[in-house]
Amino acid sequence: MIRWPMPPPMTAALAQARLAAAAGEVPVGAVVTRGNSIIAAAHNSPRAACDPTAHAEMLAIRQAAETLGQSRLGDCDLYVTLEPCSMCAGAISHARIARLYYAADDPKGGAVENGPRLFGRAECLHRPEIYPGIGATEAAAILRMFFSERR
Amino acid sequence: MIRWPMPPPMTAALAQARLAAAAGEVPVGAVVTRGNSIIAAAHNSPRAACDPTAHAEMLAIRQAAETLGQSRLGDCDLYVTLEPCSMCAGAISHARIARLYYAADDPKGGAVENGPRLFGRAECLHRPEIYPGIGATEAAAILRMFFSERR
Repeated sequence: MIRWPMPPPMTAALAQARLAAAAGEVPVGAVVTRGNSIIAAAHNSPRAACDPTAHAEMLAIRQAAETLGQSRLGDCDLYVTLEPCSMCAGAISHARIARLYYAADDPKGGAVENGPRLFGRAECLHRPEIYPGIGATEAAAILRMFFSERR
Repeated sequence: MIRWPMPPPMTAALAQARLAAAAGEVPVGAVVTRGNSIIAAAHNSPRAACDPTAHAEMLAIRQAAETLGQSRLGDCDLYVTLEPCSMCAGAISHARIARLYYAADDPKGGAVENGPRLFGRAECLHRPEIYPGIGATEAAAILRMFFSERR
């Protein structure tokens, strides 16, 4: 189901997910935008980076913060191909990301509409606007293909 | 209240917290141990690093993984002076940390015994052994001093 036309940043995030797959990493991609510009793009790479925190969202947020020279990204949006986990949802709050667009949902590891639903909790320190589902079909197909090739 | 003698890694984590305070960052410190060795030590530094993810635990975990050349730290323990938040608790699970020792609890931002209590949730992918309270008096005093000077 395509709910609205694919925004270019989600197209870029899906391209990042394909790069992850090509590198043998679970295919998730993310980009950070500011105004109409993509200021950071990254893909999941814990294996290659020897870094358990190297999820796409974390890398994109860190890259954007470094580029802007500030630890808060209140005027930035994040596009990611999979529902963020607890770690990434926490980072999104710490970074004060304005809007979160994510593609596929993740019933096992997601922490936005699944599991602990962190942004809905009373103690959540910053809650972005949340737009799920954009690019979900494409993102899920990339993930399915990756795991089917490894079975 | 001292519940048992302070283990040297927590002493080192408290020293890291003091370094954070001296640098004007919220004073939290962390170390990762493997066997009887401290293999990584870091303090909270989001401002200096321009990195919203630069909590002490994240930096120590990333440093340890880089040192060992692997993205999982199943034979490592983490000592941190404050109850981990959702982001850091997620990273602890991703890293497969064996034991988590933390000092002060954090009713506002903590995600272990407070808030979403992430390690107690059914979908949690890896739950470390958890030992809270060691060094709590010292860690809380460091935090209290830091914030009282800023009021």
